[in-house]
Amino acid sequence: MDSQGTRNSILLTPGPTEIDPDVLRAMSHVAESHFSQAFCNTFGDVLTMLRKLFQSEDPQAQPFVIGGSGTLGWDFTATNFVEPGESVLCLSTGFFADAFEMCLSTYGAHTKKLTVPFGTAPDLAIVEEELKACRYKALVVTHVDTSTSVLTPLQPLRNMLKRVSPETLLVVDGVASVACEEIEFDAWNIDVLVTGSQKAIGCPPGLSIIMVSGRALEVVRTRHSPPSSWYASLTRWLPIMQKYENKEPSYFATPPTQVVHALHASLTSILSLPLKERFTRHQEKATEVRSALTELGLKTVALQPENQSNGVTAFWLPEGLSSKALLSAVLAKGVTLAAGMHPEHGSKYARFGHMGYSVMSESGLRIDIGVEALRETVVGFYESQRQDIATEGYTEFKNQPQSVTVGA
Amino acid sequence: MDSQGTRNSILLTPGPTEIDPDVLRAMSHVAESHFSQAFCNTFGDVLTMLRKLFQSEDPQAQPFVIGGSGTLGWDFTATNFVEPGESVLCLSTGFFADAFEMCLSTYGAHTKKLTVPFGTAPDLAIVEEELKACRYKALVVTHVDTSTSVLTPLQPLRNMLKRVSPETLLVVDGVASVACEEIEFDAWNIDVLVTGSQKAIGCPPGLSIIMVSGRALEVVRTRHSPPSSWYASLTRWLPIMQKYENKEPSYFATPPTQVVHALHASLTSILSLPLKERFTRHQEKATEVRSALTELGLKTVALQPENQSNGVTAFWLPEGLSSKALLSAVLAKGVTLAAGMHPEHGSKYARFGHMGYSVMSESGLRIDIGVEALRETVVGFYESQRQDIATEGYTEFKNQPQSVTVGA
Repeated sequence: MDSQGTRNSILLTPGPTEIDPDVLRAMSHVAESHFSQAFCNTFGDVLTMLRKLFQSEDPQAQPFVIGGSGTLGWDFTATNFVEPGESVLCLSTGFFADAFEMCLSTYGAHTKKLTVPFGTAPDLAIVEEELKACRYKALVVTHVDTSTSVLTPLQPLRNMLKRVSPETLLVVDGVASVACEEIEFDAWNIDVLVTGSQKAIGCPPGLSIIMVSGRALEVVRTRHSPPSSWYASLTRWLPIMQKYENKEPSYFATPPTQVVHALHASLTSILSLPLKERFTRHQEKATEVRSALTELGLKTVALQPENQSNGVTAFWLPEGLSSKALLSAVLAKGVTLAAGMHPEHGSKYARFGHMGYSVMSESGLRIDIGVEALRETVVGFYESQRQDIATEGYTEFKNQPQSVTVGA
Repeated sequence: MDSQGTRNSILLTPGPTEIDPDVLRAMSHVAESHFSQAFCNTFGDVLTMLRKLFQSEDPQAQPFVIGGSGTLGWDFTATNFVEPGESVLCLSTGFFADAFEMCLSTYGAHTKKLTVPFGTAPDLAIVEEELKACRYKALVVTHVDTSTSVLTPLQPLRNMLKRVSPETLLVVDGVASVACEEIEFDAWNIDVLVTGSQKAIGCPPGLSIIMVSGRALEVVRTRHSPPSSWYASLTRWLPIMQKYENKEPSYFATPPTQVVHALHASLTSILSLPLKERFTRHQEKATEVRSALTELGLKTVALQPENQSNGVTAFWLPEGLSSKALLSAVLAKGVTLAAGMHPEHGSKYARFGHMGYSVMSESGLRIDIGVEALRETVVGFYESQRQDIATEGYTEFKNQPQSVTVGA
């Protein structure tokens, strides 16, 4: 069907991810009016199921599902919860955190960005110091930055924030963490959680998904200036989401009906198992991928175990093997991985997505195939290196023990 | 498959519309990376095909395809082409034109709205007077307002604008007109044309489609203040669209890959016939629908023939028949129509969508079925009225000639 040769490749990028055939079938749902009772029922169920995914039972909190990408959630945050000139503290662990900060700044927020060394997570003591030095309207953290796979643990951050600056809103970018990392929206007192449909949720891209606490809704109700965006206005969308959750029609902009059906299918599948089991399976598979990397002598970008994500692993490539060469080689073996995302280091590392359907289906067989393709490629590279050296006359090299043990 | 009873109804609303099975199949395209060559090729073709749909050959003009609804095109217009405080003249022929004006105003534009009597189009003399009285950065017109089905002819407006205020940008909301009404982007000197995927283009909802002239791009390049939106920033999206059109990967936000495939399928189908033929078929089918309404003694909301749209017809209901009752009755016959959209008149009129696949497939059979369902319902209503009157003792009524001739 596809002449490009990637039609049947296994997609192990950190989004879009592999999709359950039931979810793909839902994408072909026949055309229907967004005012029809059938669609209202579907959309209503989606919103109710999202509350479960976020482990939230607070009726004051409200999920939003809006046509667009996960990025739209940044605009939603920037235009609704922060007024121009207000201070926002942004913790940067990579490309996406940097972009979120730029988005906030575009809307007039006065941002302060704390950037950590590549591959590390924020030092809580430094964040605490900053929060004590200045009054911040919001603290923005990227739970897992897709570009580095660095995970910033939320609970210690939340506990500290509650202690030193309880009035500051906690905004979490969960694009690469929702549905593969434990997140308890209520218990962890998260105020705004933004994500997309196409990562661990396992739905095609096309939906911006946002969960907002009652406290954050109140912040919007009492703001001094109106939001400067139309399409990303919480005030415009709130009654629409309330109506749809009540299974009644409402209108602000036409929702992508088919993708909403697909989200319904993926959430139904996700919630058919206890969430704990889902998170454990992701953790186990992530550990397997990292073990394989260690066996290949490759280091992960996120060094500390507590900062390693369960949904994606960024790893350094051997000197001489570019991400482009690696990606081509694994693609030839039917597997799609992702290159690094960094102006300087981008070509020196690659990213292996292990989230959603590829982890949860067939005991994670697709991940195993991906690991094997990676292993063969890296071993092949090591072999070619040895041959190059041999050709150059260093024949004694072959007889020496290698620093890297390559597993079978 | 669907227990709600609307699963197999024929969708004759002014969007979403019926979808070609090939387009629906494309919605189930397997997951793929938005960086893959295969996807770059598809997205590139989509952009090239959009130029053809807009009848544009100007290499300085640029199409944009962004995840979101058609409404996002208003934010795109408001944040990129107009700076806060600049004057914009908005011609209002209904709900959507009013909302576009509110969106512009949200972004800080100084808007002046010319609202015409319900069911009519703007009087060119009044618009000309206004353009002479004040210098406007942009003139915003809703080509067809979906809420009233009033079409505002673009060519006379453009000619007048060119004569009295050539520096004013012409912004056209083509959500309900692109792909069912003749639009020549270059020849008519349109500067910004916004539309959505789910109306006459016949693709599922989920894409904001925008065409921008070279002149309007220059306006963005030379603006004094940066755009206040992140997700709707033309400057951010422009290099992405240029790269994709060149079939190279690029990234700002993840595109809804499956919906882009669906758009590829629908544009391929649209361009397989000369556009003229497509527009003629829409015109013919619209005429048939309006003839049927006349036979039923029903008046269209848009009174003047030159202001009647070829994609949707809003029509007044007989006194005593609400849009809700009509919609329920035709739904029972397997057809979905839309209610009116107006705070005062909403329940007194209904809307019949005749655009896209339902017009172009099977010689418009679905439209014929829709007309028949409407006819039966209205005739049934007239009959029940007569019976009510008879029951009340006005038996002589039945023998008198009726003012309404109901066709078979």
